[in-house]
Amino acid sequence: MPKRVDHEQRRRLIAEAVRRIAADRGLEAVSLGEVAAEAGISKGLVQHYFPSKDAMLRHATTTLREQVETRVGPAPDLRATALALLPVDDAGRAEALVANAFLVRALKDPEIAERFREGHARLRGVLADLVAAGQDAGELAAGLDPAREADLLLALVSGLGDALLLGHRTPEEAAALLDLHLSRLAGR
Amino acid sequence: MPKRVDHEQRRRLIAEAVRRIAADRGLEAVSLGEVAAEAGISKGLVQHYFPSKDAMLRHATTTLREQVETRVGPAPDLRATALALLPVDDAGRAEALVANAFLVRALKDPEIAERFREGHARLRGVLADLVAAGQDAGELAAGLDPAREADLLLALVSGLGDALLLGHRTPEEAAALLDLHLSRLAGR
Repeated sequence: MPKRVDHEQRRRLIAEAVRRIAADRGLEAVSLGEVAAEAGISKGLVQHYFPSKDAMLRHATTTLREQVETRVGPAPDLRATALALLPVDDAGRAEALVANAFLVRALKDPEIAERFREGHARLRGVLADLVAAGQDAGELAAGLDPAREADLLLALVSGLGDALLLGHRTPEEAAALLDLHLSRLAGR
Repeated sequence: MPKRVDHEQRRRLIAEAVRRIAADRGLEAVSLGEVAAEAGISKGLVQHYFPSKDAMLRHATTTLREQVETRVGPAPDLRATALALLPVDDAGRAEALVANAFLVRALKDPEIAERFREGHARLRGVLADLVAAGQDAGELAAGLDPAREADLLLALVSGLGDALLLGHRTPEEAAALLDLHLSRLAGR
């Protein structure tokens, strides 16, 4: 009886190898040979699933987005969600590094750009809903526009993320800056 | 009589070629051959000035920082300075793309990380001074901590910059979000 192969599992194995290499050495280091070595499988097998580097990268962005959404998870409140988006642990740092490594490529590859756009729109919706819920609960100022506040928060979290990656801010400083911003939304 | 060579001018020529390639195709595309072709000089001449890819990249980060500082220039006020940091024209986009392309590398290369750190500290100082000036002029709330507000603004501008690069926000939307944030600093 032939061995049953879990194709989805193999694709995931390859995508994880791509992300580890990208986080560690940047996209410039992603090659067929490096990915095969990192994943512990043959080059032929990598090529069977992904005929080109671009195909590997696109798949890696899809699984990256799923990973971020799983980590952020069902959001208890605005502050917890915003904090969960900051790269403070190894998993968060790896995700943020990969997202950065993919940014230049997103500008050239419509499919990767579309993944970014979807992920951004989804997070924006989550944050806007949380702002609206905070207003309903009387915790946030009634006059706020949830969508614009979501945009501001996403930009802030993204910028704080880069500052964390580069070591310009500590996780404690980043959280304090986020709290300073949130305190203004509460009108305190 | 031998031709006089302007070494500084040649280094700048090479650095500009590195930045154009990095902005267009990412750091993965930066190689001796590509840089020589882009700069219109021989590979041997590139190697004479920069014996390694790392040496080229480090020099390109130095000149990038100088270029950003020149563009931001003597800052008239907080809003104008923050707006000048957003990548809305071709020059700003190219700078932001290169800075992104270098981010992963900064984590591995202490010299590039130091360039980033210096640039960040300098901008932080400029913004903090402008916040303090705004307080002196009665335009910003007296209770603000200029250094923390500068950190918030830098994070916001950096995040809005990525949103602009990726087309998630238009320049007008980014400016409106910045104004929303600044209006809170004024206590309006």
